[in-house]
Amino acid sequence: MPTLRIALAQINSTVGDLAGNAAAIVEWTRRAAGRGARLVVFPEMMLTGYPVEDLALRASFIDASIEALGALASRLADEGLGGTAVVTGYLGRHVGPPPRPGQPAEGAVNGAALLHGGRVLVTSAKHHLPNYGVFDEYRYFLPGDRLPVARLPCGEPWQAEPAVDVATAVCEDLWQDGGPVAVTRRAGAGLLVVPNASPYERGKGDARLELCVRRAREAGATLAYVNMMGGQDELVFDGDSIIVDAAGRLLARGPQLEEALVVTDLDLPAAGPGAPSADTPADAHDGTTMTIHRVTVPVDPTLFVDSVPPADPAGSAPGPVWPRLAPLAEVYAALVTGVRDYVRKNSFRSVILGLSGGIDSALTATIAADAIGADAVHVVLMPSEYSSGHSVADAEDLVKRQGLHERTAPIQPIVDAFQADLQVTGLAAENLQARVRGVVLMSLSNAGGHLVLTTGNKSEIATGYSTLYGDSAGGFAPIKDVPKTLVWELARWRNEEAARRGETPPIPENSILKPPSAELAPGQLDTDTLPDYTALDAILDDYIVEDMGAAQLAAAGHDPALVDRVIAMVDHAEYKRRQYPPGPKITPRNFGRDRRLPISNRWREPRVG
Amino acid sequence: MPTLRIALAQINSTVGDLAGNAAAIVEWTRRAAGRGARLVVFPEMMLTGYPVEDLALRASFIDASIEALGALASRLADEGLGGTAVVTGYLGRHVGPPPRPGQPAEGAVNGAALLHGGRVLVTSAKHHLPNYGVFDEYRYFLPGDRLPVARLPCGEPWQAEPAVDVATAVCEDLWQDGGPVAVTRRAGAGLLVVPNASPYERGKGDARLELCVRRAREAGATLAYVNMMGGQDELVFDGDSIIVDAAGRLLARGPQLEEALVVTDLDLPAAGPGAPSADTPADAHDGTTMTIHRVTVPVDPTLFVDSVPPADPAGSAPGPVWPRLAPLAEVYAALVTGVRDYVRKNSFRSVILGLSGGIDSALTATIAADAIGADAVHVVLMPSEYSSGHSVADAEDLVKRQGLHERTAPIQPIVDAFQADLQVTGLAAENLQARVRGVVLMSLSNAGGHLVLTTGNKSEIATGYSTLYGDSAGGFAPIKDVPKTLVWELARWRNEEAARRGETPPIPENSILKPPSAELAPGQLDTDTLPDYTALDAILDDYIVEDMGAAQLAAAGHDPALVDRVIAMVDHAEYKRRQYPPGPKITPRNFGRDRRLPISNRWREPRVG
Repeated sequence: MPTLRIALAQINSTVGDLAGNAAAIVEWTRRAAGRGARLVVFPEMMLTGYPVEDLALRASFIDASIEALGALASRLADEGLGGTAVVTGYLGRHVGPPPRPGQPAEGAVNGAALLHGGRVLVTSAKHHLPNYGVFDEYRYFLPGDRLPVARLPCGEPWQAEPAVDVATAVCEDLWQDGGPVAVTRRAGAGLLVVPNASPYERGKGDARLELCVRRAREAGATLAYVNMMGGQDELVFDGDSIIVDAAGRLLARGPQLEEALVVTDLDLPAAGPGAPSADTPADAHDGTTMTIHRVTVPVDPTLFVDSVPPADPAGSAPGPVWPRLAPLAEVYAALVTGVRDYVRKNSFRSVILGLSGGIDSALTATIAADAIGADAVHVVLMPSEYSSGHSVADAEDLVKRQGLHERTAPIQPIVDAFQADLQVTGLAAENLQARVRGVVLMSLSNAGGHLVLTTGNKSEIATGYSTLYGDSAGGFAPIKDVPKTLVWELARWRNEEAARRGETPPIPENSILKPPSAELAPGQLDTDTLPDYTALDAILDDYIVEDMGAAQLAAAGHDPALVDRVIAMVDHAEYKRRQYPPGPKITPRNFGRDRRLPISNRWREPRVG
Repeated sequence: MPTLRIALAQINSTVGDLAGNAAAIVEWTRRAAGRGARLVVFPEMMLTGYPVEDLALRASFIDASIEALGALASRLADEGLGGTAVVTGYLGRHVGPPPRPGQPAEGAVNGAALLHGGRVLVTSAKHHLPNYGVFDEYRYFLPGDRLPVARLPCGEPWQAEPAVDVATAVCEDLWQDGGPVAVTRRAGAGLLVVPNASPYERGKGDARLELCVRRAREAGATLAYVNMMGGQDELVFDGDSIIVDAAGRLLARGPQLEEALVVTDLDLPAAGPGAPSADTPADAHDGTTMTIHRVTVPVDPTLFVDSVPPADPAGSAPGPVWPRLAPLAEVYAALVTGVRDYVRKNSFRSVILGLSGGIDSALTATIAADAIGADAVHVVLMPSEYSSGHSVADAEDLVKRQGLHERTAPIQPIVDAFQADLQVTGLAAENLQARVRGVVLMSLSNAGGHLVLTTGNKSEIATGYSTLYGDSAGGFAPIKDVPKTLVWELARWRNEEAARRGETPPIPENSILKPPSAELAPGQLDTDTLPDYTALDAILDDYIVEDMGAAQLAAAGHDPALVDRVIAMVDHAEYKRRQYPPGPKITPRNFGRDRRLPISNRWREPRVG
């Protein structure tokens, strides 16, 4: 059996940054070649970033992506990397007969390309287009019906044999039955490489491995799954690339939530001798016919002169298999990645947030400091007449533990100035305080160029326990998809992690232990308005993530009266969520891309309480 | 040829309000029966409202819709309307073999049902699912492959003959080639009825008539197109129902942007004698096979006892054809409808907005007063040290002309209170004033229960010439999709309209004529920051609606330097738009459902200037 050294580059990509993404492909190809890899696989739509949303509808952007792909192929060769085969995702265009009846003859595709020897050797397009959850790919892409199978020499650089046949599919092509996986078996390819941009969700990791095992067996081929790494608005791609052999055995696995190059040696069946056959149609077992399109990666010894160093004798076979993160470490890393990339990709250098002494802003500040460094985190203490003494003390304790930039802005004189004219009371007066704080933060953001971080958690956003333009003001909301009970767990975990490393726990114990309060009225506690958070979060998860109706929620064992109360709060708050800033998705259903409800909506679940 | 008296009920529906929508169907069926109609057709998803978005994923809501449909059939019969055939849209469920390979065996459908004699006689589902622009129907629905053809007796109530064969399709089924239209011809149906929920766009009206003419000819049948009327969040459905005969001649047309019953007598080919055949498969000429499913509407004289009055001898054949609105009248009516329904469907009774003396807030207030009555419109004058004398005078002039509720809240003392601590300057100081106004409006909204209307126009929102949580604060933004040049046109048109009716023009001439200014700095004018609005709006339309790239914009004749400048402003403001309130869509591409771009986005069109 011939051996192929493959590298999976699970790296970060920035939407729209064609030059930057191409430079990253060149750089990581150099590293892979330096370790003797003959094939490097990059994530789905690596060249354009993912998801590009309506940029996929703009002709100028599709043109630019296709042009950048050609330029990238040339540049790789110019930099002495032409002998390394590179598979990367990009935004392409279909021109030809409509792929399906009723579809147009021209449109964007979610493309994959094999680059070698300065040329784009073959292109293909994602066959199965996801259009659920956070995905809208029917809106953007035409499906691809070609399975490219590249005959790749993997022995000495100047010899055509031995060679292996390498097929390419894209992301969702693994998740649906039939299509490229079925056709890979038919084509007899020894390796199926799959670029992905698969967003992080709690607990999704094992589903991916199980899927890879199943599909490798179905394809009768070794399967190399490479996933993007990094944050893009609401989504966090978590790496976790996987290689399994045709028998479903795990050969290598990349780290979670880190950029990495997973290099390994694969023993693969030798491709048959002679030139490959012409295009062959194949039943894709999903109601469509695909074309097996075979190409040969040419042998060109000149490509290797002065370029590829001898393979690292330390090699990489089998493995490596990076250790998996524990559940809380995984979530925390996803939040840090989401914040870091939102800041960086939007060209901010610093963030600002209000620090109340409570757990939400304490955790948000800690995530921010871990993401971009404490020196780039500015906090504002904005006490009012209802702030308790411990609030200020706890906030200052956190500032000292982490070395953040602190500023105090008492809001009472400003609230008084509003009240001199408005004289509002009750909830309006509570909201007024929150909005004054929002304006202070936005003003300091404008003046200092900081990104405002919003500190609301998912329980609060779900129930509408927040003030529009008040505590909900900001550009990015790090814990938007984190239920309150998980906020506490993460805070405890982060402190324990610090203790384990011999560092000062960043979050004051008192912020974790004290009963939560918005402190907008005398002696106010969250529990005056909201149910106990354990019961609340359990209902919210079943209502929001599982989409249960009231009867189902009651049948699932939740207190019926509480079910009625919680559902009413959630339904009423849709208008607030619509104007909430984005934040990283960590659950199977976040507010935003994942859960899309009308504001004008009279549907009310029948009462069960 | 037998004659069928048909009624198209182009009426309003509220998302989620199953009881209210069912009651409307009963009420309008009563009116139709009272005018002798034997068939009443309601809009797409009339029973649930449209679009229901992710409610279509919730099992409890689908169940409730199906249950409500059965209850509606019974109720119609109970109220003596069982003899009138009713076609209505609803949210249904497909259970059975997956409609297409790879699709699930169970899922929601965009359903249509024929109710008669207390029963749901036949159901079907939309075949072509739109997934572009504002539509996301691949996310929600499985496609239907059944064409129902109902043999409907149309002579004396107790006689089975003469009868006509009536097929049903849904909305997008008309816009795509093949499918129900092709199969209607094959089935030999004499009439094709088509419930729609088709949103208003400027200039779309003629496209609809042309489409109906083309499809009627293709189907070889008279075609009755009934469209929903009313606002739902961003969308405004504009009625404008159409009937054309098989030769493509216009027989009747409903009014635009008004609820109405279009009643007309159709001469239709008689259905053949005897019982209809069983289900027949038919090539749908779109790559799918559909089933022709024939049913007979039974003759049951008891249904007519005490119920159907004699047909109105005045009849309705041919016509009526309502006159079409002029272009500006049409836009204005759409905006009024959007505001009225957002207010009503979200259970508000009044609105509040800031009145600056400028044209945007003047037009917004006027639309609001036309939508819900001047007595429900509260305006707040919030002068600052930079407000010119004419600003207050113009605002007060408008208040007097229309009889609005007025309040003045000078913002300077509040701005001073902020500045005592913050001491911000430049843009931050300008934004501060806007945000103080935002807080004042939100506080008065909280205290008085008014909906805050946001007064920004599309040119401003496109270029980011607005302050997040400042002038962009609010629940609904009536002129969000109205470019500034159209704002002026609409204001002039509304004044001329008033003059034509002998009423006081509602908008002070000075608000229309004076150069626009945000008045956040001394002597400030929009043109200090923005290009001339005529040039700006032309570029914005080509960039946003037409999705042209920079090179195309330059080639289209726009000033290249201006193209670069405008594109940069638009691209940079995406984060502000993401948190902007919804407003009625009137152009082919609004910000929101129609144009969805990432915030983290480094794509910049190559410079052309």
